[in-house]
Amino acid sequence: MFREKIKVLDCTIRDGGLINNHDFDDPFVRAVYKGISEAGVDYMEIGYKNSKKLFSADEFGKWKFCEDEVIKKVTDGIKSKTKISVMVDVGRVDVDEIKKKKDSPVDMIRVAAYVKDIDKAIFLVNNFAEKGYETCVNIMAISRALDNELNEALHQLEEESQAGTIYIVDSFGALYQETTEFLVKKFKSILKTKEVGFHAHNNQQLAFGNSIEAIIHDANYIDATVYGLGRAAGNCPLELMIGFLKNPKYDIRPILDLISKEFIPLREKLEWGYIIPYAIVGMLDEHPRAAMALRDSDKKENYREFYESLVAHDQD
Amino acid sequence: MFREKIKVLDCTIRDGGLINNHDFDDPFVRAVYKGISEAGVDYMEIGYKNSKKLFSADEFGKWKFCEDEVIKKVTDGIKSKTKISVMVDVGRVDVDEIKKKKDSPVDMIRVAAYVKDIDKAIFLVNNFAEKGYETCVNIMAISRALDNELNEALHQLEEESQAGTIYIVDSFGALYQETTEFLVKKFKSILKTKEVGFHAHNNQQLAFGNSIEAIIHDANYIDATVYGLGRAAGNCPLELMIGFLKNPKYDIRPILDLISKEFIPLREKLEWGYIIPYAIVGMLDEHPRAAMALRDSDKKENYREFYESLVAHDQD
Repeated sequence: MFREKIKVLDCTIRDGGLINNHDFDDPFVRAVYKGISEAGVDYMEIGYKNSKKLFSADEFGKWKFCEDEVIKKVTDGIKSKTKISVMVDVGRVDVDEIKKKKDSPVDMIRVAAYVKDIDKAIFLVNNFAEKGYETCVNIMAISRALDNELNEALHQLEEESQAGTIYIVDSFGALYQETTEFLVKKFKSILKTKEVGFHAHNNQQLAFGNSIEAIIHDANYIDATVYGLGRAAGNCPLELMIGFLKNPKYDIRPILDLISKEFIPLREKLEWGYIIPYAIVGMLDEHPRAAMALRDSDKKENYREFYESLVAHDQD
Repeated sequence: MFREKIKVLDCTIRDGGLINNHDFDDPFVRAVYKGISEAGVDYMEIGYKNSKKLFSADEFGKWKFCEDEVIKKVTDGIKSKTKISVMVDVGRVDVDEIKKKKDSPVDMIRVAAYVKDIDKAIFLVNNFAEKGYETCVNIMAISRALDNELNEALHQLEEESQAGTIYIVDSFGALYQETTEFLVKKFKSILKTKEVGFHAHNNQQLAFGNSIEAIIHDANYIDATVYGLGRAAGNCPLELMIGFLKNPKYDIRPILDLISKEFIPLREKLEWGYIIPYAIVGMLDEHPRAAMALRDSDKKENYREFYESLVAHDQD
């Protein structure tokens, strides 16, 4: 698959930060940035840009705040064409803290929002676009979106927002290829002036397959993470996506080095990936929080009991 | 996805046996048979039917030979509608040792063959069909098959063989969805009187996604294994396939129990699954043997060096 317009966004540190309260140390983040840059990946999302007025820096690591000076410190001196992205959540950012693009190391800001918050997302994304940033809106929990509400949100985004790219986010790892195809076609049909992106979760080992499906139907922005790092089941593995895309600007070797040297040791400390309770919540189109709680308990391998608890709950 | 004609074949013990010289103990095989039966899975492939004249019973476990009495011992007394399948390789079976179906606990015999061996496969499969068995031919290493040779083999199978089902086998875990679609459509177009099956390997985390793709294009026989057990990267996880198929005859709970009780402990002893050297050979459409040798060496995490060795070799 070679289509020059396809852009890969690495969100290893941003999505991985959801496992460890965004507390990666500087040498690790610097190693990831260097590897991503050498691999020729288009974007690296380095964390969330949340306000310190809303979250305590005692409770969360620096990648929950992504202050400009912190970003500069880990990227300084590394030769790179990779653009820096940060994510903001609706309701967790102070727009007055976001400087103009020309005064910041950040290139792109992505606003994560549920369908119900689309008006707030448009306000934010237009503010950032006016400050000179590339912008995206990531529509979360897409597998739970009602069709009429989603259609209306997409029309608003097309008509009222300056966002360059609108992402489909399979937050629960619940999509199969057929629904992925349906959604990408819907997004493309309404968002005539924007690019469409796809962010997968790997609960059912479909993150890579669904990302390919999205590409086939003309999504041009694809999220991935090194070795699939990310909350719960993790994300689309970057190394697989680089192996699939035939664009000669990408090189898989620096990603292989990163996995050998940084991610195999990290996996001994943090848990993510194909783990049955995450597969179960994916099948049932549920948020992973109950599965994450199970994995922190002494019943972590009691799969049948966990399954029954969710199915019974569904019948309430 | 509910299509009544879809049949699921569990090949946990057969494909898993490639990791441990087919040496699973009786209580384990019995537990798998019981779980598979309770889950309502259509077939269970319990091993290979190789001749003891060609392989030593000192070197290989009993599931390389699958003698009728051995099968009866592990299945005896378990209530089940699951049919028993065994696999034979071209050149490794003595047809005179295969009794008539009415005198055997086996219901189906599958012949594994490369395209070049299709005449031998047809001879075997017709012999077994005449003895009363359901039969399949599994065409291995499909990602390396030349199109003209594959077309000729499929026409021969359609016209000369009594096989009920012809399988596409992605031996190297190299297929993406588009080629899966291409192959299933080709098989369906030539094999007008037969069913088409799909057997995936999970090198690139596409075993489940490609199996869904095969189902979408009308493959009705799908192989899977509990927790994806199988050589190297393993196979399509049965639990995911059961979760996807909406046929009410299937029940995921016994599979969840099997994983909790048998497969989580087993994974401490045997290695399989998403491991970077297996992903690399999948991307490069290579047999996993070099990757398996690497995992047995003290360089098991030297991914870049391994990748370079294969790419250099390709340029010979």
